[in-house]
Amino acid sequence: MYRIGIDLGGTNIAVGLVNEFCRIVVKKSTPTLAKRPSDEITSDMARLCLEVCAEAKTPITEIESIGIAAPGIANLDNGCVEYSCNLPFRRYPIAKKLASMLDIEDSKIKIANDANAAAYGEAVAGAARGSKNSIMVTLGTGVGGGIIIDGKIFTGHNHAAGEIGHIVIDVDGPQCGCGRKGCWEAYSSATALIRMTKEKIAECEKEGRYTIMSEAERISGRTACEAMRAGDPAGKEVYDKYVKYLAAGLTNMVNIFQPEVISLGGGVSNEGQSLIDAIKPIVHNEQYGSGFLTPVELRIAELGNDAGMIGAAMM
Amino acid sequence: MYRIGIDLGGTNIAVGLVNEFCRIVVKKSTPTLAKRPSDEITSDMARLCLEVCAEAKTPITEIESIGIAAPGIANLDNGCVEYSCNLPFRRYPIAKKLASMLDIEDSKIKIANDANAAAYGEAVAGAARGSKNSIMVTLGTGVGGGIIIDGKIFTGHNHAAGEIGHIVIDVDGPQCGCGRKGCWEAYSSATALIRMTKEKIAECEKEGRYTIMSEAERISGRTACEAMRAGDPAGKEVYDKYVKYLAAGLTNMVNIFQPEVISLGGGVSNEGQSLIDAIKPIVHNEQYGSGFLTPVELRIAELGNDAGMIGAAMM
Repeated sequence: MYRIGIDLGGTNIAVGLVNEFCRIVVKKSTPTLAKRPSDEITSDMARLCLEVCAEAKTPITEIESIGIAAPGIANLDNGCVEYSCNLPFRRYPIAKKLASMLDIEDSKIKIANDANAAAYGEAVAGAARGSKNSIMVTLGTGVGGGIIIDGKIFTGHNHAAGEIGHIVIDVDGPQCGCGRKGCWEAYSSATALIRMTKEKIAECEKEGRYTIMSEAERISGRTACEAMRAGDPAGKEVYDKYVKYLAAGLTNMVNIFQPEVISLGGGVSNEGQSLIDAIKPIVHNEQYGSGFLTPVELRIAELGNDAGMIGAAMM
Repeated sequence: MYRIGIDLGGTNIAVGLVNEFCRIVVKKSTPTLAKRPSDEITSDMARLCLEVCAEAKTPITEIESIGIAAPGIANLDNGCVEYSCNLPFRRYPIAKKLASMLDIEDSKIKIANDANAAAYGEAVAGAARGSKNSIMVTLGTGVGGGIIIDGKIFTGHNHAAGEIGHIVIDVDGPQCGCGRKGCWEAYSSATALIRMTKEKIAECEKEGRYTIMSEAERISGRTACEAMRAGDPAGKEVYDKYVKYLAAGLTNMVNIFQPEVISLGGGVSNEGQSLIDAIKPIVHNEQYGSGFLTPVELRIAELGNDAGMIGAAMM
């Protein structure tokens, strides 16, 4: 039995055939060319669906279900992408359109926001499997997230809930792209880590203080972490600050949702277990009911870039 | 048809008979005497249940259901109060005990945390009626709240979720009673408003600047609001700061939950519509999807101190 998961991104459309063990057995992709009309993008999705089926010698009619992970506000009830920043979709009935192009029933196609689909993927087949209540936090260009309550994606009545990167954790903090100041995203994204690294390098240069980070050819999310491990005090200062704000945001999530598991994905999560070891004591000490309630499980996400595709397929 | 709502507080036990229009028709109360054994407290709850029934000439067996709003962690699944700060309950099977004392079926008795019951009351019979997704925020001694999702109280898998007063909105802010720094509660409770008022008075005195607030006999949550309305600039500074942090926390709630309605209860909400008028433009401007999504409805709670009792009865 196969399902199809479609990961529709601003850059690429990736389509995967997923088996009953939540594993991708065939994967195809094509550039999104995001400025095209919506129907052309959907048409490429349909073509890739047929291609992955052909490769597995399975007719499209025998596919159990198809899930689309789309950026923006995805209406789970009617299969429309209501709004997307990077794609032309405006109240676009993507599920109906794709069903019609593939000549299958509408009801076989489900959609979700990409971050939510990834959280669902981790919940059914990744770091949070076995739990019914989990949150996945993506530490990438921004801070995204998906919230799973009672085994289901939580999207709120208007399908736009769960913008956990845009909760303010420092009222007069740095400007966030969303218009607010001091959002969690402005501290815990890879972008923010790079900004804080550059700020520290500038500070060191101004103070005439040596830091190994000045020697980096290119500043990335890894620069401060590597400097810290090399024993660089300025690198450690950046890392400690990053950890402090990350832990603050995660504790907020625990106090609001009390999830069983929080999994961390995105570029910064490549730091792996050492990042978990750094945040865990802070979160467990500060979370509400500490000492009485079971502490939240903090884990690195397991499915990497496939989380959205697998999650979409399994919806 | 009658239901019974029990509001179990640290100071008083209040029991009300509630009719099918969600109105309290008989109400009785007795001091909690919180240091007594749990069974004695429950026994007084049973006695008051029988008294309200007697006054309405309705046998207890004809009561449709009984709801208990209890402080602390209330396990909705098994009817136990798992933990309470101010009462002796520790994994105490309050629903079973009360049912046995009243000789009725266990299944007729539901329990909830008091803030959650109040939010449910506002959702079925108060400011948020007609909505399926709402949040009630109580601005009292602390900042409490209840979250209603799809018409049901959200408590998380361990029944302790929804501690919205303990999300950090200012990482290095003032110490909160929960152990964290800069919690929403440390800015938006009545206690915090009083603290900020006192701080401003001290600042004015230090600067040799006049403020009418210095003349107040007793500093309360109203002092700064009244001073502002009297044209006192220092009063306005306190009020503006209060509004800024309150709006920041409320916007956080919108970005996470996208509720249809947020209702404000507790002492500070007595400021009424002028408080709503002050926070609304900030929240509506800053909420995610502003300009595309329907703005959240911000309202003053309607049921006052009866919200918990009515909510408990209607569960």
